[in-house]
Amino acid sequence: MAEPTPKKARVGYAHTRESFLKVYESLRDELINDECITSASESAQSKAAQEWFKEVNDYNVPGGKLNRGMAVYDVLASIKGAEAVTEEDAFKANALGWCIEWLQAFFLVADDIMDGSITRRGQPCWYKQPKVGMIACNDYILLDCCIYRVLKKHFRSHTAYADLLDLFHEVTFQTSHGQLLDLTTAPIGSVDLSKYTQDNYMRIVTYKTAFYTFYLPVACGMVLAGIEDPAAFELAKKICVEMGQYFQIQDDYLDCYGDPEVIGKIGTDIEDNKCSWLVCTALQVASEEQKEVIKAHYGRKEPEAVAAIKALYGDLGMEQRFRDYEAASYATLEATIAEQNLLPKQVFTSLLAKIYKRKK
Amino acid sequence: MAEPTPKKARVGYAHTRESFLKVYESLRDELINDECITSASESAQSKAAQEWFKEVNDYNVPGGKLNRGMAVYDVLASIKGAEAVTEEDAFKANALGWCIEWLQAFFLVADDIMDGSITRRGQPCWYKQPKVGMIACNDYILLDCCIYRVLKKHFRSHTAYADLLDLFHEVTFQTSHGQLLDLTTAPIGSVDLSKYTQDNYMRIVTYKTAFYTFYLPVACGMVLAGIEDPAAFELAKKICVEMGQYFQIQDDYLDCYGDPEVIGKIGTDIEDNKCSWLVCTALQVASEEQKEVIKAHYGRKEPEAVAAIKALYGDLGMEQRFRDYEAASYATLEATIAEQNLLPKQVFTSLLAKIYKRKK
Repeated sequence: MAEPTPKKARVGYAHTRESFLKVYESLRDELINDECITSASESAQSKAAQEWFKEVNDYNVPGGKLNRGMAVYDVLASIKGAEAVTEEDAFKANALGWCIEWLQAFFLVADDIMDGSITRRGQPCWYKQPKVGMIACNDYILLDCCIYRVLKKHFRSHTAYADLLDLFHEVTFQTSHGQLLDLTTAPIGSVDLSKYTQDNYMRIVTYKTAFYTFYLPVACGMVLAGIEDPAAFELAKKICVEMGQYFQIQDDYLDCYGDPEVIGKIGTDIEDNKCSWLVCTALQVASEEQKEVIKAHYGRKEPEAVAAIKALYGDLGMEQRFRDYEAASYATLEATIAEQNLLPKQVFTSLLAKIYKRKK
Repeated sequence: MAEPTPKKARVGYAHTRESFLKVYESLRDELINDECITSASESAQSKAAQEWFKEVNDYNVPGGKLNRGMAVYDVLASIKGAEAVTEEDAFKANALGWCIEWLQAFFLVADDIMDGSITRRGQPCWYKQPKVGMIACNDYILLDCCIYRVLKKHFRSHTAYADLLDLFHEVTFQTSHGQLLDLTTAPIGSVDLSKYTQDNYMRIVTYKTAFYTFYLPVACGMVLAGIEDPAAFELAKKICVEMGQYFQIQDDYLDCYGDPEVIGKIGTDIEDNKCSWLVCTALQVASEEQKEVIKAHYGRKEPEAVAAIKALYGDLGMEQRFRDYEAASYATLEATIAEQNLLPKQVFTSLLAKIYKRKK
């Protein structure tokens, strides 16, 4: 019997936030009914745990911007051509996309506990729910487990199954290494500004953000497209790390200079003593006197202290420095993307277009 | 050129705690120098993170009884015959054994945070170290990552690589599901004794303890021995779950009736409101009046309250009930082990011999 003709995406699949969210619901339902945690007997205890597990997922996984998760499909379509993406391909790309969102959810729940944060994505942090508290320490383990249950259910017979597992493991390790760099460079409550160097900043950002935000979706799309050449993955890593650095530096810039109405929050990096690109760059170019101003006022809640830092940023021309960095980084990225022939340029240009000069 | 003759274990390898610990040191050194978290530049920041990572491992991984980790080699030797175990086999068995110890370390660090525990293995809990605190929430993620870095480094070309990853993922998911059952059955600070049933108890113990303590080492040994028959793994799971239940029930019994000099601690399950086999069994057989005694005194720190519970346990014949359970469980296990022909009986009898009627 002949193989059935693969259904094309253009027939039934439109890549929208809504279609992406539908995939979440089906994966989530599979997870809460996973045979390896359900026993034959239907007990009240099991039902309560199942309800809890569902809530952990619904509260923490689908409420973000979903850019990372949705990018897997875009990468796949950039490589294969949108018309060659079957519905099955689209589902698989979205399943991998959700695995990235699960990875992010897992790190955010942990991050909020460690930072003592109050809100996340416009709602109280999960651990701040009265019934949750430190149970959140186990809940983020469960969120991490979801990645591998989804991979097993939908990719176990894929030729690249082990590569996908390796990829998620490597990126998880790198991200938690980035957290460690961050936590030990700027321990909560005692900050040593001498550690706020450009070099340290870039290392934190690379590990903590760039790998999972850019490299992971790109690599997932590449695996789905059947790419196996290690050189292609190395190249993607190089470009994605640079893009991730740029992305985080924008984030830091917008925290201070973005429109709160547009970015949806009032930045508090100065008050929170954050190892931001702005303070690292300022410390690099400041005179001894200016450094004293930073030491005296950075990480303080008083509006005058924040104003003093912002005035200093003005004196040091931080906005222009950011624009210079942005232009240089964009030029480097464009050149790197243009001069390679391992991957379609659109893989990267479409990602870059989404973040270049973003306002939020 | 002919394949070199495999070196036999009897030549160079003796399976002792010391030889097992040597494997830890070599794996640990590989981990802290892992290329995926080390950049070309040798910065003070990277060195500090590397030191921290080393300390997280040394503080939390090798200090336990190591029974779980050392069991992998024993299982392999039971299946293949000790004389057929090569040095390479022994190393691989011990590497998998250490992965189990990493899994346990990761759960214990998390568990101690959630329970607000003070000491573990005779030293302050990791999160209780002044410099650590909530950074421990990231440290146990790192400990979990170690499992998969070790598997990748030493098993990537093994035919059962994906099976090993699946196994560790499945058991991690089951263990955190067990934690969830436990945390939601007995939330810290508000215990509902109506939930302390035998059925709930057994479900918690099965997921929280039995899979990783017994099934995981046995399944690792089986994979190394080249066993692929799913029926053999199902059988091993059945026997290991029963053994794990028995093991945890012993633990609960010893907490109350063991010799503190021998078990190395003074049990506090009564004071701590623990969902112990003793209280679950007592609630099952107690009269309404006796249940009132439990409700009034269980989970209280006062010595009189503890004494009231212990007196009630005496009235209810809990020591004899434990011995009856032990005899029945042992008989069931012996019968199940005897009547199967899928695995050498010694795989299970040697494990059982180590725990039967244990005093600590």
